[in-house]
Amino acid sequence: MFNKILIANRGEIAIRIIRACRELGIKTVAIYSTADKNALHTYIADEAVCIGPPQSKNSYLNTRAILSACEITGADAIHPGFGFLSENSAFVRLCDKCGIKWIGPGAEAMDAMGDKANAKKTVIRAGVPVVPGSDGIVTSLEEARAVCMEIGYPVMIKASAGGGGRGIRLVNSEEELEAQIAAAKQEARTSFTNDDIYIEKFIVNPRHVEIQLLADNYGNTIHLGERDCSCQRRNQKVLEESPSPIMTPELRKKMGEAAVRAAKACGYRNAGTVEFLVDKDRNFYFMEMNARIQVEHPVTELITGIDLIKSQIKIAEGEKLELRQEDVSFDGHVIECRINAEDPKNDFRPCPGKIESLHMPGGFNVRIDTAVFQGYEIPPYYDSMIAKVIVKGKDRTEAIQKMKVALSEFLLDGIITNVDFQLKLLRDEEFESGDFDIGFLNRKQFV
Amino acid sequence: MFNKILIANRGEIAIRIIRACRELGIKTVAIYSTADKNALHTYIADEAVCIGPPQSKNSYLNTRAILSACEITGADAIHPGFGFLSENSAFVRLCDKCGIKWIGPGAEAMDAMGDKANAKKTVIRAGVPVVPGSDGIVTSLEEARAVCMEIGYPVMIKASAGGGGRGIRLVNSEEELEAQIAAAKQEARTSFTNDDIYIEKFIVNPRHVEIQLLADNYGNTIHLGERDCSCQRRNQKVLEESPSPIMTPELRKKMGEAAVRAAKACGYRNAGTVEFLVDKDRNFYFMEMNARIQVEHPVTELITGIDLIKSQIKIAEGEKLELRQEDVSFDGHVIECRINAEDPKNDFRPCPGKIESLHMPGGFNVRIDTAVFQGYEIPPYYDSMIAKVIVKGKDRTEAIQKMKVALSEFLLDGIITNVDFQLKLLRDEEFESGDFDIGFLNRKQFV
Repeated sequence: MFNKILIANRGEIAIRIIRACRELGIKTVAIYSTADKNALHTYIADEAVCIGPPQSKNSYLNTRAILSACEITGADAIHPGFGFLSENSAFVRLCDKCGIKWIGPGAEAMDAMGDKANAKKTVIRAGVPVVPGSDGIVTSLEEARAVCMEIGYPVMIKASAGGGGRGIRLVNSEEELEAQIAAAKQEARTSFTNDDIYIEKFIVNPRHVEIQLLADNYGNTIHLGERDCSCQRRNQKVLEESPSPIMTPELRKKMGEAAVRAAKACGYRNAGTVEFLVDKDRNFYFMEMNARIQVEHPVTELITGIDLIKSQIKIAEGEKLELRQEDVSFDGHVIECRINAEDPKNDFRPCPGKIESLHMPGGFNVRIDTAVFQGYEIPPYYDSMIAKVIVKGKDRTEAIQKMKVALSEFLLDGIITNVDFQLKLLRDEEFESGDFDIGFLNRKQFV
Repeated sequence: MFNKILIANRGEIAIRIIRACRELGIKTVAIYSTADKNALHTYIADEAVCIGPPQSKNSYLNTRAILSACEITGADAIHPGFGFLSENSAFVRLCDKCGIKWIGPGAEAMDAMGDKANAKKTVIRAGVPVVPGSDGIVTSLEEARAVCMEIGYPVMIKASAGGGGRGIRLVNSEEELEAQIAAAKQEARTSFTNDDIYIEKFIVNPRHVEIQLLADNYGNTIHLGERDCSCQRRNQKVLEESPSPIMTPELRKKMGEAAVRAAKACGYRNAGTVEFLVDKDRNFYFMEMNARIQVEHPVTELITGIDLIKSQIKIAEGEKLELRQEDVSFDGHVIECRINAEDPKNDFRPCPGKIESLHMPGGFNVRIDTAVFQGYEIPPYYDSMIAKVIVKGKDRTEAIQKMKVALSEFLLDGIITNVDFQLKLLRDEEFESGDFDIGFLNRKQFV
């Protein structure tokens, strides 16, 4: 049993983790940059340690300062949340060396899944369907040409170390190939200091459907159903829901089992997510595995009734999974909207600033995860997401209506947000029909 | 289908009802006293009509002004919430005459249950167990003596028009009888302008367990399980939970069926609650029926997943109940704490004032129903309840722990509240054991 957990994150996910720790009777340590001196997570945790100046690389990514904070406070475990150090296997190994438990997968599983090209090889061996493409990293133009010839255009060039939509290029014909490889490599070098690329068949108009997993240290791995994250704007998730509008019990079983096989193939432990593309014929293809808790985890919590953060902590403590696959059931329909401090009328430019007045929705089957409050000044250094609104209805129609009512009640003076944009999305006919793909939001002109 | 509903109430229940109306696509009209010009319900409703000065009798009880507000705005139904006019059958008849639908039971059922002595006679005929006592109103001291001789001391003298714990006297022996009858009559006259009294056997150390009902206009009546409201301070509910710590499936079935019979005996429609006393041997006795939605209705909503306010509106619109008794199931354990602006160290004196800063708990399985916000000034004219915190856990232990965590996170500067009192109650061994009665909180010295 952990005595004290250091939360190596900020914002709403830090609050979420602090609450879970408290409910398990575990003490909490917040870390904060000087810009977050007055942030809620700094205030609410049992202890708080300043770990550096505002810029992430000097604070929330400052591994030395964070390990020192563990030592000073006597924390025996770290919960990384998402982003920041959450998928940094070098830091996981450092924690292992210092005897500090990592609440997440082991470094080896993280490495196995972190390298996209290798991850694909691993899951192919486990019988998980993948998008046809190169056999790992492509090292020459000749090799690239041969692969594309075999799988057929259009293809995608992807950075092996990629994430967040960076280092990706679409190639429609052989004439474009050389230039796009160069562009992808250039972006990958800048973003990830690693310009390895691989090639995949371009799936036309797919959906993004991901499977949530829980795996303990004793070989038990279960899936908690899917989240449909096809509402994306420039590869950034905007709205997530479960069940997926295209899901059937048979498809869920097949995708769930494939996700479990992918996790087992790399000895995965703790919570994780396997992302799939699903085409019009309900064929699904492994995309990648996220070796951490995700922003949209509350969708799964509300539809299954299972607390994912508490599950993560218990697994890291060495507990066996209480649930078997057959104990997991799904009730109703859940939608999450991400509320960002950004200006949809100005190319979604982040809009930090002071929240002058604030009223948030609430009530039956409405959950808000946030770390902002009236009088809070959103710093300009971090992610622009300021709240997640999650609602549950008995079906998709009721959930959409509930979300519309909730967002209409949102009152945030002093900063610009995407609340109206989300309302336009909820009222969109294509969205309401449930029949859309990951490109549909990029094609919309809501603003 | 209603077009527009006037909400004849204020505070958190008005917000709760406005949200339900919106989710059903129905427009809303708020009414407000001049003291509530800046209240949340006034702001959030589609329209708002001022119906008088601060004092309730001139505003929220001002039936003429409220009916005028209906006419001005074209509202076709009234939701009364609880308190104020919610159990005023004369007003229900007035609404009937004006062609305005009442979202609640009919005036006759309300009358049948509003007169406590007559209600008892009605339910006895339906085979519902009641506390032994007088056959209705007692009109002379001789009659009172004869009744007490038969049922045995101790007995309770109760005002027939009573409620909220007023007009009640305990009598331990014949010597005290005359004086206590006089005292009860005096209090009843002052409180209810009706000094009719009746006599009941005093049940030693009972629990308060109530059954939630839904009844449509077609003879379908179902129960949604119980709420245990034994945590009372001077007859005011402080904390409610479900399941009751003493409940068994058999007892729930018996009490549920008895409650349904009681409702059917008076032709009851819409949502209602039958309150029972339960003694140490799990014998239960009808106490009264509340002909309205109750403060603690969210407890039932979280444990059954059924939206009670939407159900009320649909029933009033003439819809048949979608659910049969066998469709109702109970999941986990739910606790509600009432947060009041009051000073436990000063005899729980109401403490209105301005909320200077505010942070409320939230997250997975934590629901807050409130109408307050940072900068809001709580007026001194109305009930001191400012929020309800409702949590759900997989069992009672988890729910208690979750509530402790939630209340510890509550931050309310500028006014005095009972949050610490509630935390003391949650940490109390007797409360934790689940083995307590309606008197236990009065015997505690938490402050």
